[in-house]
Amino acid sequence: MSQDTEHMESTRLLQDLQSGNRRMLARGISWVENQVPGYRELLRALPADRLTAVPVIGFTGPPGAGKSTLVDRIIGEMVSKGHKIAVLCVDPSSPFHYGALLGDRVRMSNWFNHPSVYIRSLASRGSLGGLHARIIEITDLLKAAGFDYILVETVGVGQSEVEIAGLADTTVVVLVPEAGDEIQTMKAGLMEIADVFVVNKGDRPGADLFVRNLRRILSPDHNNGERAAEVFLTTATSGGGIDSLAATLLLSRSRDHKRKSWLLAERAYQLIVSRRMEQVSRAGLRQKISEALAAHDFNLYRFIENY
Amino acid sequence: MSQDTEHMESTRLLQDLQSGNRRMLARGISWVENQVPGYRELLRALPADRLTAVPVIGFTGPPGAGKSTLVDRIIGEMVSKGHKIAVLCVDPSSPFHYGALLGDRVRMSNWFNHPSVYIRSLASRGSLGGLHARIIEITDLLKAAGFDYILVETVGVGQSEVEIAGLADTTVVVLVPEAGDEIQTMKAGLMEIADVFVVNKGDRPGADLFVRNLRRILSPDHNNGERAAEVFLTTATSGGGIDSLAATLLLSRSRDHKRKSWLLAERAYQLIVSRRMEQVSRAGLRQKISEALAAHDFNLYRFIENY
Repeated sequence: MSQDTEHMESTRLLQDLQSGNRRMLARGISWVENQVPGYRELLRALPADRLTAVPVIGFTGPPGAGKSTLVDRIIGEMVSKGHKIAVLCVDPSSPFHYGALLGDRVRMSNWFNHPSVYIRSLASRGSLGGLHARIIEITDLLKAAGFDYILVETVGVGQSEVEIAGLADTTVVVLVPEAGDEIQTMKAGLMEIADVFVVNKGDRPGADLFVRNLRRILSPDHNNGERAAEVFLTTATSGGGIDSLAATLLLSRSRDHKRKSWLLAERAYQLIVSRRMEQVSRAGLRQKISEALAAHDFNLYRFIENY
Repeated sequence: MSQDTEHMESTRLLQDLQSGNRRMLARGISWVENQVPGYRELLRALPADRLTAVPVIGFTGPPGAGKSTLVDRIIGEMVSKGHKIAVLCVDPSSPFHYGALLGDRVRMSNWFNHPSVYIRSLASRGSLGGLHARIIEITDLLKAAGFDYILVETVGVGQSEVEIAGLADTTVVVLVPEAGDEIQTMKAGLMEIADVFVVNKGDRPGADLFVRNLRRILSPDHNNGERAAEVFLTTATSGGGIDSLAATLLLSRSRDHKRKSWLLAERAYQLIVSRRMEQVSRAGLRQKISEALAAHDFNLYRFIENY
C-alpha cells in the first residue's frame, strides 16, 4: 500500500467509523492491534475533543464478584436513558480473543445485536501489566466512534488494577459481602484507585454491615478530610440498587487528570522510545561510520552526539 | 560532582593518560566501566586521529591452542622493535576481573611491570556477545594512551569471534595441528573472519600437512581470486616461527572499514538509543499530558509526534 493509498484508506475508515459503521470500527481496532500500515495516521486523525470528553468507566474486582452481571445491568440503565455504550471485556486468562465470551460474558450476550451497544472482548496477552497492550488506542477509537460511555471490565489481578485506574475516569471496584472479613488486609491499592465501591450480591448475609464498615473507613474523617469513594449496595441478578449506581456513573467526567496522565505518560514513553529507535537506521549508521573510518576521523562518542 | 568539576577532572585525566600515567589509565578504564560522571566527556575528548590510526590485533581460537603463550612471544618481538603494547585478555568464563590471570595468563606475567607493556584482563559479563560490553571504549582509551598496538586475546566461543573481527584490524585465528581433522567442519565464520591463521604447536605430528591444506583451501583459486588469509606455522613455547608472524602483524593497518563499521554501528545504535531514552522524561511527559487533558485537547498520537 502506498503512502497515498494509506492516507485515503485511513481517512475513509475514520469517516465510516465516526458515522457509526460497526464493521469499519472492527476494522479500525484490527488495524491498531495488528499495526496495519495507516494505523498511525488513523490514530493521529482522531478528534482530540472527543478523546478528552468521553468518560471511561472501569470495573474491577475479584473473580466471582458478579462484575459481568453488574455491567449487563448498567448497560440496560444507560441504554434506557438514550446513551450509546461500548464495552471492553479484558480477560487476563484468555489466550484468544472472544474466548472469554463463552464463559461469564454470556450474560451480556443479549446486548450483542443492540444498535446502541458494542461489546468486544480482549485478551491481555502482550501487555506488561494486566490490560491489553493497545487498550488506550482501542478506547480512543471507541470514543471517536460516537459512543457516550466506554465501560471496561477486567478481573482484578496483577497490574490491571493500577492500569484500570489510569485508563478510567471512574473506577468501580466490585466486591461481595464475604470480602468484609478481609477488608483490613485488602490490597492497599484497591482503596486508593476506587472512585466507587460496589458491594454486590447484597442479598447475602453481612452485606449491610460491610457497607457500613466500608463507609466508615472511607469517610473524610479517616482520609484527612478528602473526598473518599462512594459505596453502593447492589444485587445485580435482580437489579436491586442498580438505578442509583447507574445515575452516579452517568455523571462520570474526566476529572482526575493527574491520575490519568500516569498511564498515558507510560504509553507515550513506550511509543516515543520505539519511534525514536525506528528512526535510527543501522545500515545508515554503518555507512556513515565506514566513511568516517576511511577518512581517518572517527570518534564514536562525538559521532553519536551529532547523530 | 558539578559539571565544571567533571570537566576539569576529565580534561586532567585525559592529559595524564596521554602522558603515559598508568594509574590514570586504570582510572579512565574504571570510569568507563562504572560510568562515573565525566566518562562521556573523557571519551568525546579522545583524539579521532589516534582512534583511527592505532591497529587492534585480535587473537582467537579454541582453548588450549596456546594463544597466551603466542601473545607473550608477540609482545616480546614488538617490544624489542621499540613499540609500546597494550594487551586485553577477554575471558568469557571468568566472573571476576583479573580472575583469569591466575590461570593461563600467568605466562604473560613477566610483562606486567615492563614500562612498554600494559596488560588488563576483562570478564565478558554484561556483553550481549562474547566480548566485554565496553571493550570498544577501553581500546579507544588505550589508543589515546599512546600505545602503538592493541592486542586483544579471547577464547573463540559464542559471538566473540564475530565481535573480534569487528573490533580488530587484523584477526588472528590460532589453531593446533589436530584441528586439521576438523578443517572441513570448522565453523564457517572462522574462515571468513581470519586475516591470519596460525598453526601453533608446530612440533606436533601433522603440522606441516595441516599448513599445506589450509594454504590450498585459502588460495585465491578457492576464493574467487580474492586475497585470502595468510597461514603461519609457529611453536610458541620455543619461539619458532614467531619472528615472521610478528613482522606481518607489525604491518597491520586499519584496512577493512566495512567489516569494522559493523561492530561500531551496533555500538553506536545501542548508545544512541539509550541516550534518546534518557532524554525522554517520564515526569515531564506526565506534566504535559496532565495540562493537555485539563485543556480538553489531547491526542496521544499527535502528542508523541511533536515531542
